[in-house]
Amino acid sequence: MKPENTKSQKVSSSTVRRLSKYYRTLSHLVDEGRESVSSEQLAKLEGFTSAQVRKDLSYFGTFGKRGLGYSTSDLRKKIAAILGIDRPWNVALIGAGNIGTALIDYREFSAQGFHLKLLFDNDMNKIGKKVKSLVVKSITDLEMEFEKEKIEIVILAVPAEAAQSAADVAVKAGVKAILNFAPRNLNVPGDVTVRQENTAMELETLSYAINQRKNL
Amino acid sequence: MKPENTKSQKVSSSTVRRLSKYYRTLSHLVDEGRESVSSEQLAKLEGFTSAQVRKDLSYFGTFGKRGLGYSTSDLRKKIAAILGIDRPWNVALIGAGNIGTALIDYREFSAQGFHLKLLFDNDMNKIGKKVKSLVVKSITDLEMEFEKEKIEIVILAVPAEAAQSAADVAVKAGVKAILNFAPRNLNVPGDVTVRQENTAMELETLSYAINQRKNL
Repeated sequence: MKPENTKSQKVSSSTVRRLSKYYRTLSHLVDEGRESVSSEQLAKLEGFTSAQVRKDLSYFGTFGKRGLGYSTSDLRKKIAAILGIDRPWNVALIGAGNIGTALIDYREFSAQGFHLKLLFDNDMNKIGKKVKSLVVKSITDLEMEFEKEKIEIVILAVPAEAAQSAADVAVKAGVKAILNFAPRNLNVPGDVTVRQENTAMELETLSYAINQRKNL
Repeated sequence: MKPENTKSQKVSSSTVRRLSKYYRTLSHLVDEGRESVSSEQLAKLEGFTSAQVRKDLSYFGTFGKRGLGYSTSDLRKKIAAILGIDRPWNVALIGAGNIGTALIDYREFSAQGFHLKLLFDNDMNKIGKKVKSLVVKSITDLEMEFEKEKIEIVILAVPAEAAQSAADVAVKAGVKAILNFAPRNLNVPGDVTVRQENTAMELETLSYAINQRKNL
């Protein structure tokens, strides 16, 4: 399903992030049996302004009717199509350390259609062993395994010094999207999207916020 | 240290995130012995445009001199002051499950001055036991313990259904900043900053990106 009106507009990553939030809130509303929601109500539930909500949704054409609000199930479905979560994605995890292991049974992944199919490491002591539901495979078999399981997204949970070489292997195997937990910038071709995940950086947005309030 | 020019300007969370990235890159450059860097060089290292870099830094007054670039150590120090990481922060972790446990020895925290001082859970089977370097304390003792350890930031790593009540306890104890790993919106007073961490949402920015490219 192809969303309307998307070609010529640049949508910021903040907008995409808010769409993910709307999607979750709409899912709750659908589960509760609510059939429609206004931009004001949606804004209140999210803690955004209603102008923000309307602006975000306007990127993708007009949903809903003025005064009548949005159909919760219809809007949820359209946002799912925009985010690409109206179909399943096969995901591989590289790195069987602390963070990788914590992610294996993260319920939100499968709930949203992200299926962790493969787990890789280069540690001979881990290869062949089971970590939760997955058997650790050798990174030397990555290309073959990716092809077999049709992997489209990689989660990198390796130490900083191993991140670039692991990313290179994944890119060579044809992957176009990497979620990088290693605290290191990755060099990838222009058609590969990297999203940097860094919990220390998230804490910095909080220390920044506290700092700013104290300076006011 | 109070940054110049910050009062009247609204800085987006994307800008703060980029400042965290500049900070890391500048730290590498300082470690390598590089004394100055131009906005073009910084932009290239980050994969941003140099206009973006100059715009981000302009929020905080003028650093560096036209044509001469920025002093790496000076700019690093100024960004640290803006982000509030020029001093240590005491952090408490609520939730001794998979994600909480993975975060305990996350090296980036202490490297950036975020010190994990306390770990809480409400599971009687966990309370009193050691998880890595921390002894699990009962959430009923949270207020007293927070005061003793001067906790300013909380990381919530509890199940969705426990998130709001845990946040309420932390807010009552005077905390003004929460990093929330639970997939649930939190209701907090206006002077409390919440940052939502959700790895599934990060994957959605990737599925969105792949989807958009396929639609082009």
